[in-house]
Amino acid sequence: MENNIKITYPGSEKVYIKGSLHPEIKVGMRVVKQMPTVSIENGKRIERKNPSVYIYDTSGPYSDPSIKTDVRKGLPRLREPWIMERGGVERLKEISSEYGRIRRDDRSLDSLRFEHITLPLRAKRGCEISQMYYARQGIVTPEMEYVAIRENMNCAELGINTHITPEFVRDEVAAGRAVIPANINHPESEPMIIGTNFLVKINTNIGNSATTSGIEEEVEKAVWSCKWGGDTLMDLSTGANIHETREWIIRNCPVPVGTVPMYQAMEKVKGHAEELTWELFRDTLVEQCEQGVDYFTIHCGIRLQNIHLADNRMTGMVSRGGSIISKWCQMHNKESFLYEHFDDICDICARYDVALSLGDGLRPGSIYDANDRAQFAELDTMGELVERAWAKNVQAFIEGPGHVPMHKIQENMQRQIEKCHNAPFYTLGPIVTDIAPGYDHITSAIGAAQIGWLGTAMLCYVTPKEHLALPDREDVRTGVVTYKLAAHAADIAKMHPGAVVRDNALSKARYEFRWKDQFNLSLDPERALEYYKTANHVGGKYCTMCGPDFCAMRISQTIKECDGTGE
Amino acid sequence: MENNIKITYPGSEKVYIKGSLHPEIKVGMRVVKQMPTVSIENGKRIERKNPSVYIYDTSGPYSDPSIKTDVRKGLPRLREPWIMERGGVERLKEISSEYGRIRRDDRSLDSLRFEHITLPLRAKRGCEISQMYYARQGIVTPEMEYVAIRENMNCAELGINTHITPEFVRDEVAAGRAVIPANINHPESEPMIIGTNFLVKINTNIGNSATTSGIEEEVEKAVWSCKWGGDTLMDLSTGANIHETREWIIRNCPVPVGTVPMYQAMEKVKGHAEELTWELFRDTLVEQCEQGVDYFTIHCGIRLQNIHLADNRMTGMVSRGGSIISKWCQMHNKESFLYEHFDDICDICARYDVALSLGDGLRPGSIYDANDRAQFAELDTMGELVERAWAKNVQAFIEGPGHVPMHKIQENMQRQIEKCHNAPFYTLGPIVTDIAPGYDHITSAIGAAQIGWLGTAMLCYVTPKEHLALPDREDVRTGVVTYKLAAHAADIAKMHPGAVVRDNALSKARYEFRWKDQFNLSLDPERALEYYKTANHVGGKYCTMCGPDFCAMRISQTIKECDGTGE
Repeated sequence: MENNIKITYPGSEKVYIKGSLHPEIKVGMRVVKQMPTVSIENGKRIERKNPSVYIYDTSGPYSDPSIKTDVRKGLPRLREPWIMERGGVERLKEISSEYGRIRRDDRSLDSLRFEHITLPLRAKRGCEISQMYYARQGIVTPEMEYVAIRENMNCAELGINTHITPEFVRDEVAAGRAVIPANINHPESEPMIIGTNFLVKINTNIGNSATTSGIEEEVEKAVWSCKWGGDTLMDLSTGANIHETREWIIRNCPVPVGTVPMYQAMEKVKGHAEELTWELFRDTLVEQCEQGVDYFTIHCGIRLQNIHLADNRMTGMVSRGGSIISKWCQMHNKESFLYEHFDDICDICARYDVALSLGDGLRPGSIYDANDRAQFAELDTMGELVERAWAKNVQAFIEGPGHVPMHKIQENMQRQIEKCHNAPFYTLGPIVTDIAPGYDHITSAIGAAQIGWLGTAMLCYVTPKEHLALPDREDVRTGVVTYKLAAHAADIAKMHPGAVVRDNALSKARYEFRWKDQFNLSLDPERALEYYKTANHVGGKYCTMCGPDFCAMRISQTIKECDGTGE
Repeated sequence: MENNIKITYPGSEKVYIKGSLHPEIKVGMRVVKQMPTVSIENGKRIERKNPSVYIYDTSGPYSDPSIKTDVRKGLPRLREPWIMERGGVERLKEISSEYGRIRRDDRSLDSLRFEHITLPLRAKRGCEISQMYYARQGIVTPEMEYVAIRENMNCAELGINTHITPEFVRDEVAAGRAVIPANINHPESEPMIIGTNFLVKINTNIGNSATTSGIEEEVEKAVWSCKWGGDTLMDLSTGANIHETREWIIRNCPVPVGTVPMYQAMEKVKGHAEELTWELFRDTLVEQCEQGVDYFTIHCGIRLQNIHLADNRMTGMVSRGGSIISKWCQMHNKESFLYEHFDDICDICARYDVALSLGDGLRPGSIYDANDRAQFAELDTMGELVERAWAKNVQAFIEGPGHVPMHKIQENMQRQIEKCHNAPFYTLGPIVTDIAPGYDHITSAIGAAQIGWLGTAMLCYVTPKEHLALPDREDVRTGVVTYKLAAHAADIAKMHPGAVVRDNALSKARYEFRWKDQFNLSLDPERALEYYKTANHVGGKYCTMCGPDFCAMRISQTIKECDGTGE
């Protein structure tokens, strides 16, 4: 594995904006420097400056040339001083999970193991340490000021008003309308926020399954996802050594990491769902809390009484976690231990500030099944559970579909808001037609942009290989960029402060034939340049699309010049 | 050039459905044959048939193995007997266009020329022959019955009600709400309809510019576009020999062909916009009418008084035709000859049944410019012009943007309906964010699906190379499939009769691990199979996405089996 991984963006610099409530924080952003606009006026060459464009940056220390990263040591522990200063936490003498200790003591795993494991932090008995707890106490944490600065992308300097202040962030977190996933054991993560009144976020999935991909590849995929703009990362590994892989990923990941703990629990029972127990699942949660997982997807909304609602579906259940726990319920003819022990789950999460992503095990797997009784019955249960999480100051959001035709998307959002009391919604697409396998990043981006506009806070990406195979590196890139553009389209439609600054700068660069600025401002500068180069010479006053005589923008400029000189 | 071009689709057959009002017509469709669903019940293997799925087919004779096509001779002249039987037309002794005669007599072009040119048809003086004319007379033409059958995709056989009858088609065409582009000189084209109350159509652009691509390549691109599902084809060539290239394309194209005649007019004046004249433009129209172009994009909505409205735009004018005619207006300080001679244009179109696509020269080229005064002033003019076209029984539709953020899309559709009296709307996307060059097929598919749902009748495709370079073959495929899925998503949301049949069949095949059926039913079977093969063996009961132990659909089926046996 390469030791000092670097992420670079053309024409860009890494800058930091300092906090004022918390002067110790500095929020990394990417700044794209532009060329001046050149014109000839009265025979003189005039240059007019174009302002730099601040871009929300998910690449963390990897894009800071002054920081030497080392995959074997992990990223700098940015948030550790903030956590320690707030108090209420203790560093454990020993990891609490039995399985974690077994893995630790297994010498045969030494070669796979991350070398610099730190003992975990945990809230002291009787202490509360979650961002939601602080918010409700009226405390603006460094994390809250950090995300306020981050969300605004320096727009105030351009004279753009913003509603996003540190106090606004605190209020949203206190009310449960927004989540800052921030496990105290993942201090390497840069704070970010998930909520309707903020930028729409995107999640990327990585993970090995069966016998594919090793640890190195997973860490590289994580960094790759951050490069293109993934806001959070779910490790969905189901194969061997997922405990060790996860440690590597978390230690090197500048964005929050989520998991579906059930996958690891299933590995422990060698795939026999009926052998799952609460104790085994509990140990898995503790193991992952102490490694630093920031949020858990748990399919606790599945009730025994509702499972039969999926019987007459076109595509049954398509959630892995949901189908596993449903099978357990039916084999034991009992309510699921995830539902029964929900308060215990919250108690565990509260001690590490792990957020809950209430998984939708009954989400539709085809547009035929969209908005059916099974799906909405589970949503009702999630509405009940989210209030129980909040009662314990556990941050939570709600997962949503899946496969939904366009005319049924709005009902999903409205019901989620109503039944789940404004908790953030986190959807997988939705895919709006089932006839395009191989293009489901697009079928789902259509639904994602719409539901993001309607208020969904985070969109789980879909790659071109969805329904067909696991994504490779290029698929991840395509999936992330596709979801970034869908999320950004939603930000524009929601009129997020400053969201259009980048669009306008790119459009102006396009009109003025500043090709490099156009590429540098785009979501994927490398691809834009590559396509351009298939047919053009950089720097030309036209492209091959219209040719020299038919370039509308060029003709349009000559019309303006006519105007200008009175001809 | 390959002589006998064939289009094949896996697992599919070409079938024809006969007319009843017009027993001589037979409407080609593609039928996907499915495998049976196999289950074991009480130890016995049970097979249940899955019905064949009828798919709207744009591939024409190329996918009929019993027809031997020959690019040098052109496609069978399907509609010629219908046209001749209706009467009112005469076969000219000589082509009417001066330029056409010059090209014909130029011996140096002999090697480029299509060999079997037929002399053109034209309405006799005093006779009306457009589909709109017949519709208003209460006559259901073979074209009208053809499209009624085509739109329904045999859904009545599945017990699905449909509002689309031949009489309904006639009524929609009579009212101007729908257009059947059907130049009497393009009898090779299979009738199709463009209107809100029908399937959403997509247009593909091809065309050389500057020095790229020759005749062979253009014909191959045309067939390629039809293979993937392009409903109409615009030839936007601006280079050399466009007269000859167009002849080859039209003679071999089973879908309607559109052009922007201004491009050819500009070639004739060697790119000097100020030298354009009505007489020259008129000759170009006649030339193309007699070759068989089915619809013309003409930027006749640009008024001298409105040009200045684009002055303060971010991106000025981005329509090639619009910028050319604006430049002409300003240089001559005169109202455009396209506007002044609009009635003359209609008189020409009426004699060949060429439809008008009223081009939006002032469409926005960036989301910043969306829905501005320039754009809407032109829309008002188009509303005036479409009524003048209808007064002469000329079919017409209205072109729309372009670049529009999601929250401003609906206003576009509403104003178009209101100002343009329910004439069909034909939009280019719209692109919903400007920050993703290289991915603009996706940014625009998001807008296209939404505006299609709201009522837009036809969507002009955008390829990944938009704004960067001319598309190659793979870009065309990606662009067409992306637009097919967007149009289909809109058809589902509009609840077009039978639109979900294919989705449901594919979803059922997916759930039952009938992989081949899943691929065969998809928009791009080749790509789906290719992706699947990167990691799987065909025929497995799971894919690499979840691996054998975690396949939700498989687990979900075992749950249903538990139910079934009472365990």
